[in-house]
Amino acid sequence: MPKPNAFYAQSGGVTAVINASACGVIETARAHKDEIGKVYAGRNGIIGALREELLDTSKESKKDIAGLRSTPGGAFGSCRFKLKSPEEDAREYNRLIDVFSAHNIRYFFYNGGGDSQDTANKMAQVSRQRKYPLQCIGIPKTVDNDLPFTDCCPGFGSVAKYVATSTREAALDVASMCESSTKVFVLEVMGRHAGWIAAASALAQTNEGDAPHIILLPEVPFNKQAFLRKVKATVTAKGYCVIVVSEGARYANGTFLGESDAAKDAFGHAQLGGVAPTIAALVKDKLGYKYHWAVSDYLQRSARHIASATDVNQAYALGKAAVEFALAGKTAVMPIIVRTSDSPYKWKIGEAKLAKVANVEKFMPKSFISKDGFGITAKARKYLSPLIAGEDHPVYKNGLPQYVTLKNQLLPKKLPEKW
Amino acid sequence: MPKPNAFYAQSGGVTAVINASACGVIETARAHKDEIGKVYAGRNGIIGALREELLDTSKESKKDIAGLRSTPGGAFGSCRFKLKSPEEDAREYNRLIDVFSAHNIRYFFYNGGGDSQDTANKMAQVSRQRKYPLQCIGIPKTVDNDLPFTDCCPGFGSVAKYVATSTREAALDVASMCESSTKVFVLEVMGRHAGWIAAASALAQTNEGDAPHIILLPEVPFNKQAFLRKVKATVTAKGYCVIVVSEGARYANGTFLGESDAAKDAFGHAQLGGVAPTIAALVKDKLGYKYHWAVSDYLQRSARHIASATDVNQAYALGKAAVEFALAGKTAVMPIIVRTSDSPYKWKIGEAKLAKVANVEKFMPKSFISKDGFGITAKARKYLSPLIAGEDHPVYKNGLPQYVTLKNQLLPKKLPEKW
Repeated sequence: MPKPNAFYAQSGGVTAVINASACGVIETARAHKDEIGKVYAGRNGIIGALREELLDTSKESKKDIAGLRSTPGGAFGSCRFKLKSPEEDAREYNRLIDVFSAHNIRYFFYNGGGDSQDTANKMAQVSRQRKYPLQCIGIPKTVDNDLPFTDCCPGFGSVAKYVATSTREAALDVASMCESSTKVFVLEVMGRHAGWIAAASALAQTNEGDAPHIILLPEVPFNKQAFLRKVKATVTAKGYCVIVVSEGARYANGTFLGESDAAKDAFGHAQLGGVAPTIAALVKDKLGYKYHWAVSDYLQRSARHIASATDVNQAYALGKAAVEFALAGKTAVMPIIVRTSDSPYKWKIGEAKLAKVANVEKFMPKSFISKDGFGITAKARKYLSPLIAGEDHPVYKNGLPQYVTLKNQLLPKKLPEKW
Repeated sequence: MPKPNAFYAQSGGVTAVINASACGVIETARAHKDEIGKVYAGRNGIIGALREELLDTSKESKKDIAGLRSTPGGAFGSCRFKLKSPEEDAREYNRLIDVFSAHNIRYFFYNGGGDSQDTANKMAQVSRQRKYPLQCIGIPKTVDNDLPFTDCCPGFGSVAKYVATSTREAALDVASMCESSTKVFVLEVMGRHAGWIAAASALAQTNEGDAPHIILLPEVPFNKQAFLRKVKATVTAKGYCVIVVSEGARYANGTFLGESDAAKDAFGHAQLGGVAPTIAALVKDKLGYKYHWAVSDYLQRSARHIASATDVNQAYALGKAAVEFALAGKTAVMPIIVRTSDSPYKWKIGEAKLAKVANVEKFMPKSFISKDGFGITAKARKYLSPLIAGEDHPVYKNGLPQYVTLKNQLLPKKLPEKW
């Protein structure tokens, strides 16, 4: 009897280290050939499973699979696609089970954020109901660091390191220019609901008063007057001001800064998007300071060249643990990072039930946010610091990081129906 | 009799390696203590000389000066300040000579772009007229790579490496997302007049058809229809399209894309600035594709963490050569990089007369731009490739690059007049 196969898919926004988790899954599965046949990856995530577009990772060389550990993006393609709930419409889940059954897939590894963990959990329920033996294991991933239970999410440490490094570097630039030119620099970073990424920019500070001088978090309602007062006070005292803003920064009524009527009124026109230009224009309008702004967008989450070694190691370890959980007979669980010591930072793999993880968002706790709302506390610093520790430089060739491109060979289809 | 002192100043937009040139100047001067007394740096560039705000670099430790080699920004402060021409108003030049005379400064090292080389040249003329013995040496610097004669400008190689790396990384991200989400990614880079930085993004390509798929250069008038056709064709063929745009991209009539009436009409409102959002909105408006955009702004030119080793070495060598030129009795000259071989890349230090350098801008030659105007030629690739070669990772501590902060101790003033 052929050994059962595994299905692995990447979901949602990709990161600098999601492929390190894929690497952990595939290498660990390969090390257990007596129990797991092949690992099939979904082409473009779960969409690939629905369409029966399965990528045969057994066709990839050992070297290329190892190379995934240092390749950003999603090597098999990801997707933004949320399955309907099985109560509402079970067709998608049924189709998945048909596809898995046709290809003798008994392990389901889903690498994503809150939505994906919800899907993995429902998949476990449906397969149980249909009496199809499928072990469903979630693998955490999100630059937003908003999953509960786990100490942190793979992808976050690297984007945090990128943002802290970029803030430190840009601050040196602005400090050089401020006497006769730019006085205010605004960096926009990701984080629509939770401000973890923006908060991490504070790690750029060595001494009191270092940049970033102001951090705007989604968790703290934007107070325009207090903000402008602090910008002015900082420029007066230091000569310049560095501001890091979450894309999700908002007013008390929930309106995002980037699309608010207030922003519209102040400058007389709508925005093409971008909180950074809005904030910069507000500063120029009210205080007259010359500004520059940057929006790092995808650059921040794909910057494998400055990945955190801690993050890479954890991403790999979680992929590995997912396979080990499956081999131990578990289902509807997600391996997590458990912190056992702050300094030196120590962690181990733990376990969370998918039913409890699904659709719960972890925001910055109040105790992590400074009194004035524009910075972070010592407690936050203690939490964040170890997550960016360590470098894991990729191999360079001709001056550029060498990243792996897989063959991504499709498996022949077995089902008569198209999706 | 006390040995003559040297004055060094940083000018214009700073770079990831301008401090490496400062390091070359100071270390070389220190190695010639028999001929050069102290190196005084202008606080915030030439403004510091006018105000008699001179920073005594002899107070800095050997270790901190060595650390300048891997610290971005301008360690002494820079400025955007153009002196009036001496014919028009000689007061500024006269003041400089008064300050230099008061502090026994006989060497003038000016580290900057075209304007600064012009200033250094005029300084040489004025001092000759006033019979004040001052040797004026320019040190090239500009991320825009637009100075003539020199093979390249320090600062450019590092920003080129940053942009090529970021393009490669972001392209992997978009490729992962394009099936069900973002199809077009736009990265805006510096270059108001010359497209060297945007052109360097093409180094991210390994094979035909790799990202970036479209590069918009200031040298090529923007053709909206041809651009949209190429975006559509690329998305149809590849599933996604990566665009790199120079901030100076413009229409045939010279109007910048970011501030054009055409852009205004198309979307019904003015821009806060940023060509990337304009281009992205144009694509959305005409083709309907989901987009993301990034503006790297100061991040690109301060990204010392991914500096080109070639660039760092050249920046240092030019600072060193400047001092050697001065010691050899030269004036009104600038050391330059002379390429002696493409592959392997070999270079040596040459010399250009400031009178010829001043205010000449070097644009991308036609032979470097592909026929359709959206890419670069093999000739351009041969020129650009070696400039990003080699890594020079800074030292990391607690997960972040360690950069030097100097004491920057001011010299007591000697002149009665304030400026």
